[in-house]
Amino acid sequence: MIDQRHLRVALLGAGSVGSQVASLLLQHGDELADRAGATLELVGIAVRDVDAPRDVDLPVELLTTDAEALILGADIVIELMGGIEPARGYLLEAINSGADVVTANKALLATHGPVIFDAADQVGAQVYYEASVAGAIPIIRPLRDSLAGDRVQRIMGIVNGTTNFILDKMDAEHLTLEAALAEATALGYAEADPTADIGGYDAAQKAAILAGLAFHTTVPLEAVHREGITEIDKSMIDAARKAGYVVKLLAVCERLLEAGEEAISVRVYPALVDRKHPLASVHGANNAVFVQAEAAGDLMFYGAGAGGIQTASAVLGDVVSAARRHVAGGVGVAESTRANLPILPIGHVSTRYQITLEVADQTGVLATIAGILSDGGVSVATVEQTTAAGVDGAPTARLVIGTHTAREQDLSDTVDHLAASDVVTRVASVLRVEGSN
Amino acid sequence: MIDQRHLRVALLGAGSVGSQVASLLLQHGDELADRAGATLELVGIAVRDVDAPRDVDLPVELLTTDAEALILGADIVIELMGGIEPARGYLLEAINSGADVVTANKALLATHGPVIFDAADQVGAQVYYEASVAGAIPIIRPLRDSLAGDRVQRIMGIVNGTTNFILDKMDAEHLTLEAALAEATALGYAEADPTADIGGYDAAQKAAILAGLAFHTTVPLEAVHREGITEIDKSMIDAARKAGYVVKLLAVCERLLEAGEEAISVRVYPALVDRKHPLASVHGANNAVFVQAEAAGDLMFYGAGAGGIQTASAVLGDVVSAARRHVAGGVGVAESTRANLPILPIGHVSTRYQITLEVADQTGVLATIAGILSDGGVSVATVEQTTAAGVDGAPTARLVIGTHTAREQDLSDTVDHLAASDVVTRVASVLRVEGSN
Repeated sequence: MIDQRHLRVALLGAGSVGSQVASLLLQHGDELADRAGATLELVGIAVRDVDAPRDVDLPVELLTTDAEALILGADIVIELMGGIEPARGYLLEAINSGADVVTANKALLATHGPVIFDAADQVGAQVYYEASVAGAIPIIRPLRDSLAGDRVQRIMGIVNGTTNFILDKMDAEHLTLEAALAEATALGYAEADPTADIGGYDAAQKAAILAGLAFHTTVPLEAVHREGITEIDKSMIDAARKAGYVVKLLAVCERLLEAGEEAISVRVYPALVDRKHPLASVHGANNAVFVQAEAAGDLMFYGAGAGGIQTASAVLGDVVSAARRHVAGGVGVAESTRANLPILPIGHVSTRYQITLEVADQTGVLATIAGILSDGGVSVATVEQTTAAGVDGAPTARLVIGTHTAREQDLSDTVDHLAASDVVTRVASVLRVEGSN
Repeated sequence: MIDQRHLRVALLGAGSVGSQVASLLLQHGDELADRAGATLELVGIAVRDVDAPRDVDLPVELLTTDAEALILGADIVIELMGGIEPARGYLLEAINSGADVVTANKALLATHGPVIFDAADQVGAQVYYEASVAGAIPIIRPLRDSLAGDRVQRIMGIVNGTTNFILDKMDAEHLTLEAALAEATALGYAEADPTADIGGYDAAQKAAILAGLAFHTTVPLEAVHREGITEIDKSMIDAARKAGYVVKLLAVCERLLEAGEEAISVRVYPALVDRKHPLASVHGANNAVFVQAEAAGDLMFYGAGAGGIQTASAVLGDVVSAARRHVAGGVGVAESTRANLPILPIGHVSTRYQITLEVADQTGVLATIAGILSDGGVSVATVEQTTAAGVDGAPTARLVIGTHTAREQDLSDTVDHLAASDVVTRVASVLRVEGSN
């Protein structure tokens, strides 16, 4: 039997994840101590208001409003407050006082990651953040460690449960975006202000973290191209279904060549995914990360992307890892960012597209449109034309054009030309097609 | 810029995985050094015959038959020879000379794991074995680290690509076992002697490793109940399809209660899986591990389960991890086995079953059979009876009985009674149903 170390654990935040972490740590403390080779004493839980109502009963004597006092003397500090400040300041204090830190704070890591990682590197501490992306799904360690000897080519992630729930509802139950969002809110999947989710901001933060790990490059949040699902309407979902696609909000992290040199692209947008692709089967608020690596081939990681107790699982895995590291000794492992690959703007990225146009139902229209596409360097793979009565009673044709891989800038310029053309009544939608480029 | 450590890497074995490891390490050495914070010098490759033909060109000057000399002075030793001896002796020598070791050797770990882990613990070295289970799929780190703060309830793994290929072929193309095996052999998925795969021995080794990690318990290979796919015939596959199931060779690791005390069961057998279960969509030689944990809920890990370059990805991830650990300092983290849960024999396990009987087509047969089941404590969930002409021309009825959850010992005794009954012509098959007990 190894001598057990005794480690002091401070918890900052007792929201839906924090209260579960505290509860599980108190409940399974002996078991976790056996696994960690160290006893884990929860020395306190910093909260804004000691008397606030909580879902989970926590020992009152552990609650405190004095986070700074709690941090001093802790071996492991768990930050589950969310937001930038005061979380950032507390994490840096914890690191500088010699503690390892565990955080689920994707917003903080995506915006201030380098400062936090550098601080840890200076003192030999370690930052653990398995819970920051895709909740309970182990994805940080697989990218950081298991795939550290491989070259990741591409990641496609469904990393926001709220938008997946909404898009899945729209697809399965033919709901409008508003109705699906209302249901997500009623079930607690969406916040009162859903902007972070439906605007793609949350997914963009996670994309920055995943791309940083996969490509060994610091990825500033500003370099992530971001589009939300707010423009997705029922007609797009229905059209996608008819064409054998499903609309998913994807975080795409891609290694590519720009003028013969390696570069990366990191982007979040709603995209069409073939219904046979494994990501198409990810329903409800679940998450999945599909990884393509040079040697490993295709991998997929699937599970619950959010939820208090699910995310607590990832946090506690990090706590045990931090404890084991304390027992083992040595310094922390610095983040791997030396590849430092350039991050391309969205205009330089190539993908396939589906363009839906409403056009005048008259002779020569298709030739005109084909000419505009060809002049723009956009090669057509499929065309489907249907005719229906327009709003004013005059017949209107609907053209659904599937393109071969095209450069985003060319496509975007071409769509501008199409929109300006006399024969085009309306550009109904332009969606990227992801999955098997 | 951190000062780079220089680490000496010795490779034992240059088969399909080893030659890919050597090739990738030589090709991407600079990149891996950046990630590891240490240069990785491949100092030599121990082989049985320097002049043997190989798939991949390797520098002749690195090849040697003197493994022992290579091990001395190496910081990291990669063992990809397979088999028990001399691999075991070399790994222990490497550990005792202070090296970290990386191995894909499931047979060795499943049979001599404790000796190897203890030796590493004694000198503070670390054993890495991500490649030992499910090839390129990161599953060891997720179980060992990411889920270290959770309580795994159940694992269901498709961990043998050969048998999955065979069963998938039988299902999709209505082949016999022999025909599907012949195709697997022709494609290089099956060895000349396929016993290790189709007998379930390979899967049992992997089950022992997974269960050990998941339940923090040393699991001797002898404690794993093992059945292969040799008894699975075309008629069972067809009957499964008709009933909405697919037959998969599963490694099941389960936490359960025996007389109120926690225990585990580790077993490998072909089982019926609902076609809607995520594991049913795992085709060809792919692998997947489905994990249910108390807090995390359902997780799935999917990817290539074998293949030289795919497995090399996992090996190189371990090499980078070992290098980072050398740079960080400190000792290795001991395996977590203190839970030491009892491992139940198969007779104590409960699951659902599907029993297919050929019975005489006469009055009262169903009542007799229902009586035998009821007397045996086996509760019937579904019955389907069909009648066909038997071999001798007399009408024979076929009964397919789906049971509720029953204890294996009760089920087995009951099947013996059924077989001995006058009204039962033949017990055509007894298969467990796994997935949603």
